[in-house]
Amino acid sequence: MLFAVLLYPRVTALDAVGPYDVFSKVPGNDVVFVGERTGPVRTEIGSLGLVADATLDEVTSPDVVVVPGGHGQADLMSGGPVRDWLRRTDATSTWTTSVCSGSLLLAAAGLLRGRRATSHWLALDQLPAFGAEPTGERVVRDGKYVTAAGVSSGIDMALTLVGLQSGDRVAQAVQLGIEYDPQPPYDAGVPSKAPADVVDYLRQHRRFVLTGRD
Amino acid sequence: MLFAVLLYPRVTALDAVGPYDVFSKVPGNDVVFVGERTGPVRTEIGSLGLVADATLDEVTSPDVVVVPGGHGQADLMSGGPVRDWLRRTDATSTWTTSVCSGSLLLAAAGLLRGRRATSHWLALDQLPAFGAEPTGERVVRDGKYVTAAGVSSGIDMALTLVGLQSGDRVAQAVQLGIEYDPQPPYDAGVPSKAPADVVDYLRQHRRFVLTGRD
Repeated sequence: MLFAVLLYPRVTALDAVGPYDVFSKVPGNDVVFVGERTGPVRTEIGSLGLVADATLDEVTSPDVVVVPGGHGQADLMSGGPVRDWLRRTDATSTWTTSVCSGSLLLAAAGLLRGRRATSHWLALDQLPAFGAEPTGERVVRDGKYVTAAGVSSGIDMALTLVGLQSGDRVAQAVQLGIEYDPQPPYDAGVPSKAPADVVDYLRQHRRFVLTGRD
Repeated sequence: MLFAVLLYPRVTALDAVGPYDVFSKVPGNDVVFVGERTGPVRTEIGSLGLVADATLDEVTSPDVVVVPGGHGQADLMSGGPVRDWLRRTDATSTWTTSVCSGSLLLAAAGLLRGRRATSHWLALDQLPAFGAEPTGERVVRDGKYVTAAGVSSGIDMALTLVGLQSGDRVAQAVQLGIEYDPQPPYDAGVPSKAPADVVDYLRQHRRFVLTGRD
């Protein structure tokens, strides 16, 4: 199975690397990072470069497409090579997946029309404009489309997909291998659980959280 | 606060990127990736390059040292520039931290002598040889040393440290920002919860899990 993880400037590193470290641990899976150009792509905050090893033109028919979110997502919504690549690869993919605001890129490419999908909680309300139906679930599967909520949810999405593709035992072995027995020191990972002032703060800075720009 | 994340060949990407995406979201935090040389460092499975932006010699007094684990850890245990760097930076760090088998590097540098610490569950039994006391906790703090269990636990470690350093509200805002409300599709993240045959399989392939070599 060939997994293609899309990189673009100001992508969120964990959106891409969470699924990568799950998918790549399954024997027989190959994961390639693709970008408009090969070479380092600077992530969201700028202090990490992730290397794209192939151009969009070099990876045209991966089995699984993985679209991470991040501040740079907004710049890609109105068309261009990334949107063309998403449509082209989706035509033959077994699974088309996203993490966080990556689902907005799939939606803008017209791929989630009439589909249930999710996104970062601050971005969910942008889905209907593209004909997608937002849900509050952490991982949403509708046909071959598997979308995940914000950032860290890509790990849950990837384990779900490994289970579907390779079976429960393989997925459990990967989970045990990465010791994924989460114990967050706080219970504030969704708006319904976080303190109201923390939720308000992020809502007020919503544009910055989603795009890195005020 | 300057956070230095160590990179070395065959590091586990998620060990480094989980903490990075937590620490870098706190205003005032700078995160720099350091390696023996600058430029791309290939991670564990080989299909991802993470870019080191500074050499060890260029980052001598970070506030926080972050040591990820990975297949390449075993090659660094017997000394060399990385061990020298760990000792040098630890002398002035506010916090010295590790994820997964990264704690073995700290231990081999003599920094965990008489300390409680953790590591990947398959590597825990290597800690006593270096005078460290292994525990079964996911995140262990002993003085300024904060060690985390396998791979994904780096996210919990980083949120814990942000809470200690910047307060609960900031840590909760980061948690909500990365929507860290984990919902693994299986409950197999530690040996006590995983199916016995899955645990046995990983134990039998322990050397491969830890070093990538049979």
